[in-house]
Amino acid sequence: MAIDPPYLLFLGDAADELAAKTARGVAHWRPDRCLGQVRLPGCKADLGLPDKTIDQGAAEGARSVVVGVANRGGVISEAWTDALERALDAGMDVAAGLHARLNDVPRLAEAAARNGRRLHDVRHPTRQFSVADGKTRPGKRLLTVGTDCSVGKMYTSLALDAELKRREVDADFRATGQTGILICGEGVSVDAVVADFISGAAEWLTPANEPDHWDVVEGQGSLFHVSFAGVSLGLLHGSQPDALVLCHEPTREHMRGLPTYGLPTLADTIARNEELARLTNPAVATVGVAVNTAAMDAGAARRYLRETEDALGLPAVDPVRDGVARLVDVLP
Amino acid sequence: MAIDPPYLLFLGDAADELAAKTARGVAHWRPDRCLGQVRLPGCKADLGLPDKTIDQGAAEGARSVVVGVANRGGVISEAWTDALERALDAGMDVAAGLHARLNDVPRLAEAAARNGRRLHDVRHPTRQFSVADGKTRPGKRLLTVGTDCSVGKMYTSLALDAELKRREVDADFRATGQTGILICGEGVSVDAVVADFISGAAEWLTPANEPDHWDVVEGQGSLFHVSFAGVSLGLLHGSQPDALVLCHEPTREHMRGLPTYGLPTLADTIARNEELARLTNPAVATVGVAVNTAAMDAGAARRYLRETEDALGLPAVDPVRDGVARLVDVLP
Repeated sequence: MAIDPPYLLFLGDAADELAAKTARGVAHWRPDRCLGQVRLPGCKADLGLPDKTIDQGAAEGARSVVVGVANRGGVISEAWTDALERALDAGMDVAAGLHARLNDVPRLAEAAARNGRRLHDVRHPTRQFSVADGKTRPGKRLLTVGTDCSVGKMYTSLALDAELKRREVDADFRATGQTGILICGEGVSVDAVVADFISGAAEWLTPANEPDHWDVVEGQGSLFHVSFAGVSLGLLHGSQPDALVLCHEPTREHMRGLPTYGLPTLADTIARNEELARLTNPAVATVGVAVNTAAMDAGAARRYLRETEDALGLPAVDPVRDGVARLVDVLP
Repeated sequence: MAIDPPYLLFLGDAADELAAKTARGVAHWRPDRCLGQVRLPGCKADLGLPDKTIDQGAAEGARSVVVGVANRGGVISEAWTDALERALDAGMDVAAGLHARLNDVPRLAEAAARNGRRLHDVRHPTRQFSVADGKTRPGKRLLTVGTDCSVGKMYTSLALDAELKRREVDADFRATGQTGILICGEGVSVDAVVADFISGAAEWLTPANEPDHWDVVEGQGSLFHVSFAGVSLGLLHGSQPDALVLCHEPTREHMRGLPTYGLPTLADTIARNEELARLTNPAVATVGVAVNTAAMDAGAARRYLRETEDALGLPAVDPVRDGVARLVDVLP
């Protein structure tokens, strides 16, 4: 599964800017792949890209329409179906990361078959994986891990990948969730894999590579999140990381979705991840901390980062405010 | 999903006794549910149960045919289809725990629909689960955990359940794998659940109960097995065990299927499981050790158990040689 660029980013009738968060991620991280945006009447989001109709995009060479909008319930809106069917008839593929499947909408499935085009439901793995074999593979791997879900692991991973590439280091971002897959055009939504194959899917996603090549693997969940720790552990074992980057959001009052569960400390999160990661890579080491300080003012953010550095003896940055160069500086 | 007793145990054309291991488990643990065995020409296995034809079994009141035989590749043999279709036509359900699905065999799917009967593919969960919420539930729970896969967790769990019931303690065996499900007639094959829902499925399987009720939960895999640790961790978090029983096979030279991975020590396995289990149940404690000494002579087994008790300060038994009364004695 690889989504062919260039993309038309489909914003549909997005109720607000937040609803188009996925499209914004694609436009931010892969501007070179984005030919324009498609907005339906009533759309309240704007990525600042050229507005195109489906037909204009197709005529200008777009090869895939990426549904970059979420609506309540994750369903595929009736309002979207006309436009997406038109895209298939115009010779483009369609990709989406919604809970609902494009392939389950009969008009879209028929239009794809009729035109020989593909529907990418990136949240739903279509291939079979093997169980993990735990064999050591050449190449270097970095995994972002978190105190909690939704603390900036994807953003940090993409920033690390971009910084490595800027330094002309051979690197690949390895997407493990739907937004990451839509951004990079391929990957595996590991939380949607059958449980027996979590670590096997992570091995498949980060195969043997050149000794100096870095896979930058998007982490998922947290070992301390009771709903998703199994996914986090399978990803940790399968990706065999040499380097961990810890991601954190300091104003979070409890684990996401779990009001009675407090957050672990940074030190405990590092210790737990390293302890469990050693099973498949005894040389694993945490190289730094990425903090999402969006909810803090600049002074508080700077103080928090400095205190974190002092307490842990590791570089601590906000990837948005500071970039991640100081983390890449210390990679083994 | 609950498989209605009484059962006819279907041995098909089993190549040897080992191929009928699942049927043997059902006959051993639930003799009251087993009306007889069905053997096809060439069958080399014998459970010692009365031989029945499909029609005899149906006439005597059997309600389900349980496919208790494995063949190479886990497929549904052509040789079996006639008999299983006959069972559906005679008004019985059919259950199997193979990789291949009964529901994917057109003749069986059609016969089930025609007769209003059910095909239970117990390895493949059919219901949707929620993500785990981590809320504490009343009732007591015991989980068997292992140094490795296939060290006796199912047998130990069934033995503990039987001993609790013998003492008139209110208890349920909670099956998490296909053989366990066929033995007890219900359960969830947790390794076949979508990864996001492992711990949610474990919560569903072990719901709130009376304060003195014990759920005895069949463990899966091992936190030290790189292929399956994610499943083991989700099950540990979701089942919120009060008590752990550690299962081990002392003659195993490496982790099952992983020639380069040695086994963890018993002490490390206890420490790791307790450390991770505390997230959802801070009061978790390991109560004892169940050792599969089948490959040792009686003297060596006795010495090994005594040394284990001395080293860990916990009762250590072989459930087959000794029973598990000494483990039940020390339950909280």
